[in-house]
Formats: sequence, C-alpha cells, structure tokens
Amino acid sequence: MAMNGSTRWAFQCEQEEGEDHGDNFKSQPLTVRTVRFMLMDNVDESDKRIIIPLAHGDPSAFPCFQTARAAQDAVVEAVRSAKFNGYSSATGLLQSRRALAGHLSRDLPYQLSSEDVYLTVGCTQAVEITLRTLQSLRPKANILLPRPGYPYYDVCAGFIKLDVKHYNLVPESGWEVDLSMVESLADENTMAIVLINPCNPCGNAFTSQHLEKVAELARKLGIMVIADEVYGHLVFGSNPFVPVGKFGSIAPVITLGSLSKRWIVPGWRLGWIVTCDPNGIFEETGGALPQILEKTDEEFFSKTKNLLRENSNLCYDRIQEIPCMTCPHKPEASMFVMAELDVSLLEDIVDDMDFCLKLAREESVIALPGVVLGFKNWLRISFAISPSTLEDGLGRMKDFCQRHLKKP
Amino acid sequence: MAMNGSTRWAFQCEQEEGEDHGDNFKSQPLTVRTVRFMLMDNVDESDKRIIIPLAHGDPSAFPCFQTARAAQDAVVEAVRSAKFNGYSSATGLLQSRRALAGHLSRDLPYQLSSEDVYLTVGCTQAVEITLRTLQSLRPKANILLPRPGYPYYDVCAGFIKLDVKHYNLVPESGWEVDLSMVESLADENTMAIVLINPCNPCGNAFTSQHLEKVAELARKLGIMVIADEVYGHLVFGSNPFVPVGKFGSIAPVITLGSLSKRWIVPGWRLGWIVTCDPNGIFEETGGALPQILEKTDEEFFSKTKNLLRENSNLCYDRIQEIPCMTCPHKPEASMFVMAELDVSLLEDIVDDMDFCLKLAREESVIALPGVVLGFKNWLRISFAISPSTLEDGLGRMKDFCQRHLKKP
Repeated sequence: MAMNGSTRWAFQCEQEEGEDHGDNFKSQPLTVRTVRFMLMDNVDESDKRIIIPLAHGDPSAFPCFQTARAAQDAVVEAVRSAKFNGYSSATGLLQSRRALAGHLSRDLPYQLSSEDVYLTVGCTQAVEITLRTLQSLRPKANILLPRPGYPYYDVCAGFIKLDVKHYNLVPESGWEVDLSMVESLADENTMAIVLINPCNPCGNAFTSQHLEKVAELARKLGIMVIADEVYGHLVFGSNPFVPVGKFGSIAPVITLGSLSKRWIVPGWRLGWIVTCDPNGIFEETGGALPQILEKTDEEFFSKTKNLLRENSNLCYDRIQEIPCMTCPHKPEASMFVMAELDVSLLEDIVDDMDFCLKLAREESVIALPGVVLGFKNWLRISFAISPSTLEDGLGRMKDFCQRHLKKP
Repeated sequence: MAMNGSTRWAFQCEQEEGEDHGDNFKSQPLTVRTVRFMLMDNVDESDKRIIIPLAHGDPSAFPCFQTARAAQDAVVEAVRSAKFNGYSSATGLLQSRRALAGHLSRDLPYQLSSEDVYLTVGCTQAVEITLRTLQSLRPKANILLPRPGYPYYDVCAGFIKLDVKHYNLVPESGWEVDLSMVESLADENTMAIVLINPCNPCGNAFTSQHLEKVAELARKLGIMVIADEVYGHLVFGSNPFVPVGKFGSIAPVITLGSLSKRWIVPGWRLGWIVTCDPNGIFEETGGALPQILEKTDEEFFSKTKNLLRENSNLCYDRIQEIPCMTCPHKPEASMFVMAELDVSLLEDIVDDMDFCLKLAREESVIALPGVVLGFKNWLRISFAISPSTLEDGLGRMKDFCQRHLKKP
C-alpha cells in the first residue's frame, strides 16, 4: 500500500495538469461583491476617517434601518413555540404560502392561491431556481436582461449555461424599457424578459402604463415576464409601486421577491417565487411568515420609506453640485441612484473603475462602478445608509471631483 | 399584435412538442420523500387510528424530542440584537465558523481553523456544493456511495451528471464497509468515497479501527473521504462516535454536518462543510451558532441519546418477535434500524415495496422500503418518535405480519 508522500490524489492531478476545471467561472462577469472587496482593499489604511459604503444594498447595519419589532417577535415566537423546528415541505409551510398569497393578492386584480407560491432561501435562490427551470425546459433557451441590471442574473445564467441578451433601460425616459430593442433582440429561443421593478440600480418605479406595454410585448413575443420585485413597495416618489403581476392575464408573470429589503433583513434569507398567471398558461404545479406579514404595521414601512426619500433627495441634491456627475432621473424607489460620470472633465481618471478605485484610496468612499452593471462610466450610489454618513460621503466625493477637475 | 388566444408561448411549445425537458429527472432514483408521500396516500382514510411515521428522520414533532433551551435562547438573542439581519459572508459569519472549528476540533488530534469551515443551508446544500465542486474539477469524475445509503446523494449526483458506483455495507460485520469491493470499484476517475458516519440507515457507529482502514484505502486509491456526519454524536451503544477527520492526515477528509439531528432542528437549515486536511492536500481556500455550540449543556444531548437508546432497544426487541423480519445488527447510533424481510414466509406480499404499501393501507404505519436505499427486501425503521407511538406501530406491524404469514 502506497503510504508514502508520492500518493497521487485523484482530485489533485487533474488540477496540476491544468485541464478543464472552474471553466464555468472563467467567462463570468464581475460581481458586485468582487468589486466591493477590490475597492475595500484599495482604501488607504492611514486614512483615519470611517469608510463610507455607497456600493451595497444592505442598510441593516445602521441603527436607523432596523427591522420591525413585529418581525422580530414573530421569529422569537416561532422559535419559542418549537413548532417549526422540523423539516418544512420543499415549497414552504402551507400557512406561510397562504399568507404570502393573500398578502400579494392585495395589489392584484385576481386572487393568488398558496399553490402559486414557493418559498426560497432568499431571492438569490429564487433567481437560481427560475433560471435553472427555464434551462431544463429548453436547452437552447435565452432570456432578456436589463442593462444596467443586477449582475447575479448574468453570473447565474453563465454558470448554468443559459444564454442572455441585454436590452437597455433608457435614462432619458426615466429608465423605461427600450421596447423596440426588446423586440429586435427576441428570437425563437427567447423564453423570458427579466424586469427589476422597482429598479435596481436605477431607482425608478415603472408606471402601470409602461408595465402594461411590457406585458403586451411579452404576449406578442410569446414569452413570460420574470418580475424581480425584491424592492417592491420601497417607493417614495410620485409613481406608486405596481406589481407586474397586475398584467398576468396579458402575459404570464413569475414574480420573485423576499423579506430582505422591505423588512431590512437580507440575512434572514426568506424569498419567494410566485406564479401570477390567472389564465393558467403555466401548468398547475404545485413559521413565522404569516405573522410577519400580518402584524408589521404601516408605520414601520412608512418610516423606512421616509428615510429613503429624505436620503434620496439629499443624494440627488448633492450630486447636482458635483461638476462631473449628472443624475438624469431623481430616484423614487429602491435604495440606489445611477449617476453618469463625465470623465472628459477629469484630469487623470480614465473611466468609472479608475474613478472608484481612486475614490476609495483617497476618500475612503466606496461606490460601485457602472461597468459592473453593464453601464460603463456611470456610478451606482446606495443611499440606504444613515443620513449623516451619506452627507459625509457625498461631500468627500465632491472634494475628490473638484481636486481631479481639469484646470481651465 | 397577436392579442388573441393563439399566442404560442415560447416555454409551452417545447413541452407540447415533447422535446428534451426534465430529462435530468427521468432516470432519478426514488427519493425518501416521494416514497413517503406515496405511502401516506395509501393509508386507509377510514382507519381512525393515528398514522405512525416510521419512515422519516425528523423527531422534532414529538414533545419528547425538543431542541435545547440554549439553542432557542441563542436564536432569540440573535434576533433581538438586530446585529445579524444583514447579509452574511458567503461562507458564513467568521465568529460562527471559528466556533464550529473549535467545537469540531475537540474530537480531532489537530486544530481546525475558521478557514476550514463553510456554513451551508442545511446538510443538503453541503452535499450539493461538495458534489458540484467535484464535478467541476473533473467532468468525468465518479464517487463511491454506500449501499444501503441516503438517496439524496444519488439524486444530486444524477442531476449534476456526476457518475456514482455503489459499494456494500455488510450486515454480517455490523454494517462495515466492504473494503475489497471499494478497491475493485475505484478507477482512475474516482475522486471520493462517501461514508455516512454514524450510519443512516443502518444505525451503526463505525469503529476507530475500521475508519482508519477506510482512510488508508482512500490514501492507496488517491481519493478523498466525504464523511457525512449529520448524525455525529448520536451514538448510544458501545462504539463511541469517531469523526473520520481523525484520520485526515492519512487521507484528506471533507466532513459534512448540521445542527439538524443532534439539536433536533432540521428546519433551521444550518449545515456545514469542513475540510479536515492537516497535511494541506487540499489547496487552502477560503448568528447564533457560537452560543448554540457553547451553551447547550451535556444534559440535553444525553437526554436525547437516552431516549434514542431506549427506543432502539424497544424497536430491536419487538422486531425479534416478528416472524418474517430479522435485524442483523442492534442499532447503536443515528435514528434508524435496518430489518431484513423474508417475503418467502408471507402469503401475498411480493417485496418490500408491496409490504410497505399494504402496511400503510391496513395498519396506517409508514415504514421505508429498502429498495429506496438500494437494498431490496429490507425495511428502514425510524425509532426517533415517541416511545408509546413506536410501541403501538411495532405492535401493528407484528399483527400485520402474522395476518399475512403463509399457513403451515
């Protein structure tokens, strides 16, 4: 028996020979996480000021963004009851699915049933299951993704070998979908259009009229709409939140969502997939959530939204004062705003990535370069942080830009 | 625009044409869940007695199997603190990984570090990630699975197209691994042997000597050991629980585990992957858990084990009294016992599946047919239920067998 050090481990030699391993990852786009870490590494350690995180969508670290007491209570009660320690069904507890169906139906012209609802491990798993299902139904399938968008869709699709095409969201029309581009991109293998509503990263809430047009186009193309509504109800401008499912009778809609953003508990990993399909185009297939959904009072949500509104106003106003940045659309939903960068005005900055790396280094401010979202020379700025930190961060960003402006 | 009912939905036509969809699932083995549901459907609705569940490994529904107060408290405190509502790192919170490394190191001759630990969504995700990683490292890889085993490994491997081969666990030698069979099955594409320790479904705890032999064989074959220790520490016979990681210096070991069984909280979905590899054969890669691990007192675990020991004795004794069933090895670990069925003694029962379907129908007792575990004409009986229910169920099983015995 070869007990010496020369044993060749089956899982090592392959790596040493440099064959196909991790190939799935090679062509992966940059993820928000990777770029955030890269920027964090670029911060100057000798800078004694706090680091200001404008690149991420998780406000739960700030005391002003705490989850609802009712949500806390519901989890505590569920744990104390010892009734929910066992295996759940694969699609989630019936009472939770029923509660969610009722909750979401309030905003729809028809009633969802528990059969339409599948609970998932955060919205991330909801995305993964949805894309895997499409790929398994039709191996050559492709889907249409928004640009700018949320890079996880690209990463996940790349991993499972589902083709993607990108349609534009148009800043000049308040980040609406470029419908004619969607129509020209779709082919016989296109199965779905993904719409993030309200929009991450653009911070707009699509109007009911526009969503209806998207649904009508989906019907014409014979495709479904995947509505990522993880920022659902987080609207604070003039457009109300309209779920795409409202138009489920025009084209079938798969709605993805979670507690993460509205309840500010991304770490709880409670997401869902809901089929909004009153005409039955899809085949019928088959804890603490009811309380969280029922008992959280409106005050909690309105407090969150007020804070986001104030922060978004602050953010928008401060960006106006920065010479090389423009914000074509005042944010009115989600936790983000997209700002365009005019690098031609800057002396020694070549693009958005360069801007963000130097901003991290010189000002300890972390903002996300648009290139990660498929939108070069833009920035995604998160305003879901405490107002004072936001003000501080935007002030530093202004100083940074003024320092790097070309001399006249 | 085609607004009439004749729209052809891209995701429908493929199904209608009957092309490759769901092909991944066609060759799937039966899962425990599928068969349990099939059996539940076979119960006679007019039978007024309670249904006795002997087919599943989730005792949390029974008041005698409740989780530790400290575990409850830890989750409540974590929720109340509002410190853990945000996104965690992809591999789990550092303090949780560190706590788990310390906890598992107590049983090992070397120290694990937080770098060795990855937290997962239950042990199911740990299995999935591990198998996917093997498949991505070597597309033609195969792994060796125990028979009888845990069907999820077959299901998961089938789904991700990782080849499997089955080696026998030998009832006559207390369910030890058939080492010569392992050696003859392994080929140049074999990457790992999976060992479920303590053993589900056999209910045995492997001895230290035997585990060392498995590790030495793995070293000879140049493969790793995947040690599924989800039933770790649930031993109540003469063999103590020995983690396979003890022999990580002989062959590298990937240990999978979770809180599910020892803390009786399968629904909490807290699992882990741990690399036990003191010689660094693997490349170095990269809540409430610390409290749960530290504060749960020994009394809780010993209470659980005493209950399981008593139930296993009861189960073993009662099976002796059933004419067509034999139990070659008294269970001393996990929550299950395997009993062999001699269908030649029975009048109108052709095999284990037939036995279990009729048992469900006539007695409202649900036991798992061994065919699901790759072991035809055996039964897997769970004794992790309340003692009175267990006694009742085994009594009904005896009545059933006596009724179906061939007349002399």
